[in-house]
Amino acid sequence: MTHEQPHSHAPELDSADLAAFEAAFEAAQKGLAEGGIPIGAALARDGVLIASGHNERVQNADPIAHGEMSALRAAGRQRSYRDTTLYTTLAPCAMCAGTIIQFKIPRVVVGEVHTFDGELELLRSRGVEVVLLDDQRCVDMMRTFQAERPELWAEDIAE
Amino acid sequence: MTHEQPHSHAPELDSADLAAFEAAFEAAQKGLAEGGIPIGAALARDGVLIASGHNERVQNADPIAHGEMSALRAAGRQRSYRDTTLYTTLAPCAMCAGTIIQFKIPRVVVGEVHTFDGELELLRSRGVEVVLLDDQRCVDMMRTFQAERPELWAEDIAE
Repeated sequence: MTHEQPHSHAPELDSADLAAFEAAFEAAQKGLAEGGIPIGAALARDGVLIASGHNERVQNADPIAHGEMSALRAAGRQRSYRDTTLYTTLAPCAMCAGTIIQFKIPRVVVGEVHTFDGELELLRSRGVEVVLLDDQRCVDMMRTFQAERPELWAEDIAE
Repeated sequence: MTHEQPHSHAPELDSADLAAFEAAFEAAQKGLAEGGIPIGAALARDGVLIASGHNERVQNADPIAHGEMSALRAAGRQRSYRDTTLYTTLAPCAMCAGTIIQFKIPRVVVGEVHTFDGELELLRSRGVEVVLLDDQRCVDMMRTFQAERPELWAEDIAE
């Protein structure tokens, strides 16, 4: 589906990055266990986790509650996001990319871009650093979901 | 602040457009009466109002609850937005513009662009029709708010 290739070697992530990314992955799994769409995200500041969240379209009948949006909502009001990183299991869509741009989040760590193209170029064009992983767990999680619930996935990306 | 000029003559809006835009304006006034940020929005399909909403940053400590987002959340899960129009009292920010693009909402009616530039060009570049009004009530509402609560306004647009 996507023509973009992730780093051939995993980019360097420090231990705080890895812990925050795991929080995003665990949020996605929690969403899946609830019967929802398995996409999760986490926000961290200077290596300290602020909040995580997952897609809640099914659970709360909330179309704007993508993983990234839920994590940002859970983080509450922040004076600034300029020292934060957002971690997400899947390439951000236009809604989530626009939010990252609007909130001036400078860095995004993305689990994979194989199962959804997202808006990585829009992010980069606005100066956001995109660290693209190639996390096979995230790929497998989404591929299974897309195969089992194609109509729900289509709804979530308005296709 | 903005260099974009609205239509020198008010664009033609039909009576359903006008009613939906009034719902957005009333939502903004409701938000203001609650102590919140006075920006409102409404979603309509084929001229019939689906939902309205207003900024809820203050009321719910929710940074993603801009007016447009609240209206879309209130509308719940929709199979498609291709036959909808979104009405908003103020030019959409990058979050709300990205959401309009992601949801494939084809048309947006904007109350004013004098007090915030927004992302009208991004919307147009993705094929969204932007109908820009020059509603003095919306301008006055935002100018008064920006003068009285500059720190809250700065927080809402991450400045």
